Amino acid sequence: MLGDVIKIKDFKNEKHVPTIDCPDNVQPNEEFEVDVQVGKEIKHPNTVEHHIEWIDLFIQYDDDPNTVHVGRYMFGPVVGEPHVKAKIKLAKSGTLIALSHCNIHGLWENTKKVSVV
Amino acid sequence: MLGDVIKIKDFKNEKHVPTIDCPDNVQPNEEFEVDVQVGKEIKHPNTVEHHIEWIDLFIQYDDDPNTVHVGRYMFGPVVGEPHVKAKIKLAKSGTLIALSHCNIHGLWENTKKVSVV
Amino acid sequence: MLGDVIKIKDFKNEKHVPTIDCPDNVQPNEEFEVDVQVGKEIKHPNTVEHHIEWIDLFIQYDDDPNTVHVGRYMFGPVVGEPHVKAKIKLAKSGTLIALSHCNIHGLWENTKKVSVV
Amino acid sequence: MLGDVIKIKDFKNEKHVPTIDCPDNVQPNEEFEVDVQVGKEIKHPNTVEHHIEWIDLFIQYDDDPNTVHVGRYMFGPVVGEPHVKAKIKLAKSGTLIALSHCNIHGLWENTKKVSVV
Ligand SMILES: [Fe+3]
Ligand SMILES: [Fe+3]
Ligand SMILES: [Fe+3]
Ligand SMILES: [Fe+3]
Repeated sequence: MLGDVIKIKDFKNEKHVPTIDCPDNVQPNEEFEVDVQVGKEIKHPNTVEHHIEWIDLFIQYDDDPNTVHVGRYMFGPVVGEPHVKAKIKLAKSGTLIALSHCNIHGLWENTKKVSVV
Repeated sequence: MLGDVIKIKDFKNEKHVPTIDCPDNVQPNEEFEVDVQVGKEIKHPNTVEHHIEWIDLFIQYDDDPNTVHVGRYMFGPVVGEPHVKAKIKLAKSGTLIALSHCNIHGLWENTKKVSVV
Repeated sequence: MLGDVIKIKDFKNEKHVPTIDCPDNVQPNEEFEVDVQVGKEIKHPNTVEHHIEWIDLFIQYDDDPNTVHVGRYMFGPVVGEPHVKAKIKLAKSGTLIALSHCNIHGLWENTKKVSVV
Repeated sequence: MLGDVIKIKDFKNEKHVPTIDCPDNVQPNEEFEVDVQVGKEIKHPNTVEHHIEWIDLFIQYDDDPNTVHVGRYMFGPVVGEPHVKAKIKLAKSGTLIALSHCNIHGLWENTKKVSVV
């Protein structure tokens, strides 16, 4: 099961962990910017042989078991760094979940709570 | 965390569960066909309002913590059914993992062991 | 413009060209199988350094200027061969268009007419 | 052929056209930010029934016939606006090409020259 193989660590010590930076509080259905990246603290290699292929971004609303797919960002090796600032909007409070994939070191995730007020 | 929100049920009773059909035993690095779909037993709707957006296929080798991404299959609503037969090859024994996403009902997964002999 | 840089050649002599195999005539909105691949006649390499990354499949209905996206099939290098059989359905007659991307040799396309009768 | 069906218009009058904003001159292999969006001048709808599904970004180097895929940015309807700022780097001068897809109004493209000095 994926829950057993997706890795979770502190991004300050482990270069594969995706980070999610955005306001803690946002307006309902109002566009805001979310910075999603791998390598915020420690840069990950970006070569054909070893790179971050993509980051998926999901929103898990607090009162809803059905995960919503906010975006998938794919990066061509060498030319595309695993870093985007995306424009998103949320209807309700919940937890953003980022899932990233390194072609060598597999799946990594991170989360950030966002309150819709 | 994604492990808490990806759903796992019996595909015979729950129409969202992806299925993985392929031989139990394959040759190392030899191409074989894997049937990956949502709706094998109970058809899922396929409308703009409600459809399966994509299925991801991963291989988790038995002796390797790093999940390898085999393919992502995306389906245009209405015209694309969530069903592909893909050609893949494996170096070592492991577990295929399929992850699917319904635009309304979220994330679902299933697994199948494959022995490389 | 993309029309200037997407390459079109005979798949029998050029290993990058995607092929589309399916019936010439199908029923309206009835599921059929379409074989989409790169390497039907001449196998393309499949290594981390050199591989087909994805194939997009579109339908251009005869009487409609708006191209519909049927599917995108992405292949993990080495483990995923650039070959799927997808299940699709069409409302009206038109032309299927496949676009493939090699990480070294760029964009290639091919088309196949399908009559809905 | 895709070159016949991908539409090209002025983004100031047509809401589907992707825009590419970045410096005209960049350093070789040095990361810079590129703003890629649909709706810079006129907002496109973002509903389940009608939305921009994805934007692809390519680089066509001046002296190279092989198009390089820089990134694909996919947007979940309603929650994901078709707008990212991506971090990329280029080895040589060339033309960035953006291709976007509306689920109703098909394929649209735009280009921007970037000099590597
Ligand atoms: Fe890595
Ligand atoms: Fe559903
Ligand atoms: Fe090639
Ligand atoms: Fe539109």
